[in-house]
Amino acid sequence: MRLALGMIGGGEGAFIGAVHRMAARLDDRWSLVAGAFSGDPDRSRAFGRSLGLVEDRCYGDWRAMALEEAARSDRIDAVAIVTPNHLHHGPARAFLEAGIAVICDKPLTTGLADALDLAAVAERTATPFVLTHNYSGYPMARQMRAMVAGGEIGTVRIVQAEYAQDWLARPLPGNKQADWRGDPGRAGPGGALGDIATHAYHLATFVVGAPADQISAETSRFVQGRLLDDDVQVRLRWASGARGQLWASQVAVGATNGLRLRVYGETGGLEWFQEEPDLLRYTPIGEPTRLLRRGGPGLTPAAHAATRIPAGHPEGYLEGFAQIYADAADLIAAHRSGSAPPVSTRNLPGMAAGLEGVRFIEAAVRSAAEDGRWTALNEDPL
Amino acid sequence: MRLALGMIGGGEGAFIGAVHRMAARLDDRWSLVAGAFSGDPDRSRAFGRSLGLVEDRCYGDWRAMALEEAARSDRIDAVAIVTPNHLHHGPARAFLEAGIAVICDKPLTTGLADALDLAAVAERTATPFVLTHNYSGYPMARQMRAMVAGGEIGTVRIVQAEYAQDWLARPLPGNKQADWRGDPGRAGPGGALGDIATHAYHLATFVVGAPADQISAETSRFVQGRLLDDDVQVRLRWASGARGQLWASQVAVGATNGLRLRVYGETGGLEWFQEEPDLLRYTPIGEPTRLLRRGGPGLTPAAHAATRIPAGHPEGYLEGFAQIYADAADLIAAHRSGSAPPVSTRNLPGMAAGLEGVRFIEAAVRSAAEDGRWTALNEDPL
Amino acid sequence: MRLALGMIGGGEGAFIGAVHRMAARLDDRWSLVAGAFSGDPDRSRAFGRSLGLVEDRCYGDWRAMALEEAARSDRIDAVAIVTPNHLHHGPARAFLEAGIAVICDKPLTTGLADALDLAAVAERTATPFVLTHNYSGYPMARQMRAMVAGGEIGTVRIVQAEYAQDWLARPLPGNKQADWRGDPGRAGPGGALGDIATHAYHLATFVVGAPADQISAETSRFVQGRLLDDDVQVRLRWASGARGQLWASQVAVGATNGLRLRVYGETGGLEWFQEEPDLLRYTPIGEPTRLLRRGGPGLTPAAHAATRIPAGHPEGYLEGFAQIYADAADLIAAHRSGSAPPVSTRNLPGMAAGLEGVRFIEAAVRSAAEDGRWTALNEDPL
Amino acid sequence: MRLALGMIGGGEGAFIGAVHRMAARLDDRWSLVAGAFSGDPDRSRAFGRSLGLVEDRCYGDWRAMALEEAARSDRIDAVAIVTPNHLHHGPARAFLEAGIAVICDKPLTTGLADALDLAAVAERTATPFVLTHNYSGYPMARQMRAMVAGGEIGTVRIVQAEYAQDWLARPLPGNKQADWRGDPGRAGPGGALGDIATHAYHLATFVVGAPADQISAETSRFVQGRLLDDDVQVRLRWASGARGQLWASQVAVGATNGLRLRVYGETGGLEWFQEEPDLLRYTPIGEPTRLLRRGGPGLTPAAHAATRIPAGHPEGYLEGFAQIYADAADLIAAHRSGSAPPVSTRNLPGMAAGLEGVRFIEAAVRSAAEDGRWTALNEDPL
Repeated sequence: MRLALGMIGGGEGAFIGAVHRMAARLDDRWSLVAGAFSGDPDRSRAFGRSLGLVEDRCYGDWRAMALEEAARSDRIDAVAIVTPNHLHHGPARAFLEAGIAVICDKPLTTGLADALDLAAVAERTATPFVLTHNYSGYPMARQMRAMVAGGEIGTVRIVQAEYAQDWLARPLPGNKQADWRGDPGRAGPGGALGDIATHAYHLATFVVGAPADQISAETSRFVQGRLLDDDVQVRLRWASGARGQLWASQVAVGATNGLRLRVYGETGGLEWFQEEPDLLRYTPIGEPTRLLRRGGPGLTPAAHAATRIPAGHPEGYLEGFAQIYADAADLIAAHRSGSAPPVSTRNLPGMAAGLEGVRFIEAAVRSAAEDGRWTALNEDPL
Repeated sequence: MRLALGMIGGGEGAFIGAVHRMAARLDDRWSLVAGAFSGDPDRSRAFGRSLGLVEDRCYGDWRAMALEEAARSDRIDAVAIVTPNHLHHGPARAFLEAGIAVICDKPLTTGLADALDLAAVAERTATPFVLTHNYSGYPMARQMRAMVAGGEIGTVRIVQAEYAQDWLARPLPGNKQADWRGDPGRAGPGGALGDIATHAYHLATFVVGAPADQISAETSRFVQGRLLDDDVQVRLRWASGARGQLWASQVAVGATNGLRLRVYGETGGLEWFQEEPDLLRYTPIGEPTRLLRRGGPGLTPAAHAATRIPAGHPEGYLEGFAQIYADAADLIAAHRSGSAPPVSTRNLPGMAAGLEGVRFIEAAVRSAAEDGRWTALNEDPL
Repeated sequence: MRLALGMIGGGEGAFIGAVHRMAARLDDRWSLVAGAFSGDPDRSRAFGRSLGLVEDRCYGDWRAMALEEAARSDRIDAVAIVTPNHLHHGPARAFLEAGIAVICDKPLTTGLADALDLAAVAERTATPFVLTHNYSGYPMARQMRAMVAGGEIGTVRIVQAEYAQDWLARPLPGNKQADWRGDPGRAGPGGALGDIATHAYHLATFVVGAPADQISAETSRFVQGRLLDDDVQVRLRWASGARGQLWASQVAVGATNGLRLRVYGETGGLEWFQEEPDLLRYTPIGEPTRLLRRGGPGLTPAAHAATRIPAGHPEGYLEGFAQIYADAADLIAAHRSGSAPPVSTRNLPGMAAGLEGVRFIEAAVRSAAEDGRWTALNEDPL
Repeated sequence: MRLALGMIGGGEGAFIGAVHRMAARLDDRWSLVAGAFSGDPDRSRAFGRSLGLVEDRCYGDWRAMALEEAARSDRIDAVAIVTPNHLHHGPARAFLEAGIAVICDKPLTTGLADALDLAAVAERTATPFVLTHNYSGYPMARQMRAMVAGGEIGTVRIVQAEYAQDWLARPLPGNKQADWRGDPGRAGPGGALGDIATHAYHLATFVVGAPADQISAETSRFVQGRLLDDDVQVRLRWASGARGQLWASQVAVGATNGLRLRVYGETGGLEWFQEEPDLLRYTPIGEPTRLLRRGGPGLTPAAHAATRIPAGHPEGYLEGFAQIYADAADLIAAHRSGSAPPVSTRNLPGMAAGLEGVRFIEAAVRSAAEDGRWTALNEDPL
């Protein structure tokens, strides 16, 4: 009954690979059975063995894994791709071509051409594709989305999104996580842009229910020697008339993982902060603010469906991430059985979110290069 | 490399059983392979099958399971006992006698005689025993303990512990969780006392580093028809001269799972709230308060050892619970191999904590019956 | 149109005298016109001059001031007594006898005999008497009281009151404020008890709407050489069946002026913290918590009447204190004109609150001396 | 020893006039002795009488007041101008010409020409001029400024300023405060821009220690029929290389008076929120966040000088406003006596801040009209 999961990347010392594995385990919907965990075949196999995988599914590289898994009768149901950004496109394409569902870390790719290519392959092969914009797995993120969709704050007017960290406020020589994120060859054209601003942008559009239409961006590199932005300010215009600000920074000393979203509509306002994920402040116009709590009264079915334990027993980052895996299991199981996936899977970020994210990064880079020119998100230079 | 886990209780609709299973899975140290999940043999087996257990390890009752597992060469490494309180002693005794380690929910037993009996069996059989006072698995709880032990707040003067909930503020006819907790035959002599005050008491003594010496208690039953206390106020005296207050309530409307501990010493103070578990407020005398964060600067090795993901990526209740399982795995694996367990396992609550908890409940009941008489915690009536 | 105020005490370096003067000025209802500010006649007069008082109303001592003011046609409308506790009774008696209204700092007196004497004099002379339990002047304290009286949380079950400070966590040799508070001859029998626990007790009874019936107390002196308690734990029983805990400490390192009140009833709960005085958390049973804000929606007339500026523009300690002076002006002006005082003056703490406070202190001292014996608050030893 | 204050505007029903009067009273440095409180001479005089002013200083209009006060030997030391924006220039000019110091509400004027004119008059007459950017009177605002100036966070990189309210989220027909603020003839070219964004801009520059160099703005009118902006987003560039975002909104449902400033430098970060004005979060890079409290340890002399009561006894909006008046008293008294004003008066916003504010408004309006073009703040179109 558990689905079989493979993994590309996420070996020794990787941060996000371990997170994916914990997230996949938590709800007992997945068994990790195969993987190519490192660019070094020996390390890859050794790491797989250390996870308890059977020998012949500890692969030396992702190409071999795609070929061999595709050929097995007990092949994996999905592959999780948790490599640096430049190594998303290749594996994703290979597994999609093999008809194996993909759960891919964000951003989708390092460039729009690759992204469009993946989108075409996914469509042609009709294979499920999930992008781990994990913050949308938080129950209260889904609560916001459902409240906005349900008209509880009226027409959205203002969106304030921010994602502030400080771990890159100083140079971090020798730090593996910092290295690839600061290298345009591996990270793509965005630094903080690709790493965290895309999360904030996705969350904002997830809650608003539509991508933005145009953006105007200012990017900075505050730490000397840095090749990619470490701070980015974006203004957003939605076609609906909503206006937004987005700030993402990795040099904001004192911030840790400060993803915050505030959405204000004609008749209500919502405020959420990722570091207190179980709480949502909701103000109906002219009334006192309500503290909505995960697991508590006043929640939508979407929020209840994404919750495991009672209010006051805090769920956190891993539970939000696990929700993506739980929903992905529903989606992929339904796909295999040919049945309709449950409605909750509509909250899953997929290829469309991936394309929007890459467009956001590229438009931000172009806008910043042109002194903040308003740039349409579908103004693809390709 | 994973240890094999069995479970007693925790079937359909149980709250804490599901929590134990998630906690056991999270760090990939355990595989659930056997269980007797219900008092009804058919239900028990059906539930085991629904979890994917092999047929012959879906047991109809715990007695059979103890016997049969004991006889297997691939027997479980530990059994998790997640039944109502009155069903802790029997299974725990049976598995200890079989030399199988026990991970038991709290409170240890419904009475001191049973508790002392279990303690004797555990000692005689030299079998590991872990009590899931899960809140002590939070990294910041361990941080507090390590700071107090390290003298960072000087001699402890004052302890303020509280645990406030509101889910029992109204009668809950037909609620399975409420039913057994309100039934002296299944819960034992304490209502809120056994269910939550013991957690607060354990946490306080865990951080202070010593059990209290005497207590004075006042208990109330606010909801009509209730047979056990739903609110309890306790004063505590430590032999060291420290003084404490403990309040536990299940009728405090607006509280969800408000376990809070504040400890003040001669040269510093600590404040922690379970609903924001990653934060600890630390004030060195005469200096500004510091916000210590899980995963952030200023932490002890004990806190770092209990953390999975970086600061700002909230860990929660399940991660704290999982820490108990991770440490239990270390303890039990070391026991099996005859090696010394890692130092982190000294943070694990075990039989001593269980005895202290039962003594606390019984002394509180006696004190309350005598108008708050100061009652020694070792003044056993047996 | 402004009332004329005199002051006893509050000279150079005094804390609370300056507070009273700011509070009296804020709403422009009072002019300070006379005073005896110090036990040293020269200092007293010099200080009066420094405040701009006319020469002949800068008195050398309070006895002279009472006599001379009583004889003036433009005599003061009220006298503020802001001396250490042992110097409340004498001046209060003298001015009451002169028919001059008294605004007195708390606790009323250092002993019950003096308190009863004052009560008798006030009654005989029918002269207004106000006790500056200033925290009851906060709009949200009045909001709580009005909500409880209006049944919005149902029958009160549990009261949790606390008042934690840390400024006495170390000996403070030579500190004028600490000196008299630690001297039984000037402070009376209570240390933290008289200084802050009485505030917490008053606030609790102000909100509940009734004094407690019995208390059980434990007092501690943590700092070596201290003659009076610096930490006190009290349990409270109301005749209505409500139960409470009160903790007051002046050695809780990290606390500043942590007066907190939580009141839980059958159908709702209230939580308020003096350091964020504009906010009140209100939870109707089974619904999300509401954040009520001073000046915002959902407030009672009593709260609106005590507010000056819009929500979000924080009012603080001085504004709460000023409210006592504003209401006292209403009360005293009505008394002078023989008209009925406005309903808001019913919120003013007066002689009854003063007696209850002294009874609370004395009962706590007795109870603590007898190991926490439950002691009736009207069990006067006189 | 008190200085004599006159007032222009602030009659019946005015919000800010009453605030100025409370602020002026609090520290006992001022006596209100004269005023022209309304455009209607009879109302003006009646209101003056209701405040207890002597008959011949209750003026029918500000022109008469300027002439007559200038002619008196006991003329006022300063005039407070608390009229709608379009009525700042005329009175300010008249009193400056009379050599009477001016304490003027913000923004300075409704256009740059008037602002430059006032600046010239103030310079020619060498008369003190204070602009009530009251939020810079908060002790913790001054703490931030002193810390930045003292290098405690290193070179400033990022400034995040915001000021969110919701009182204009709906049309407010007949609301006097809303009416003039929404009328370009009285408010000038900015709605939220002039009313609150200027406060946020001033606070940011006050803390950074320099005005911005260029801005790029987007303004919105969300409420139908509104003639002026009710939401504004601004990006800021400082010549130093610092980058900032500023958001001001009067339609953010759930916000009350949410002025927030966050400043991040190379070696530290600061976060402050006006609704909790006594707290400042300070993070030295690589260390735990400190909670600095007004009146507590770790503060600069500038913060101590602006504080009245101990930590934990909250000061609020009126105290911050009062600080402007207290400092203005120092400045004006020094001016009269020909002595050097105390160093604390350097924190007072004056004519330079007024000019910067008007330039900010005008540049924002121009930038917004040109789709967010980066606009220099000294790019005056005059």
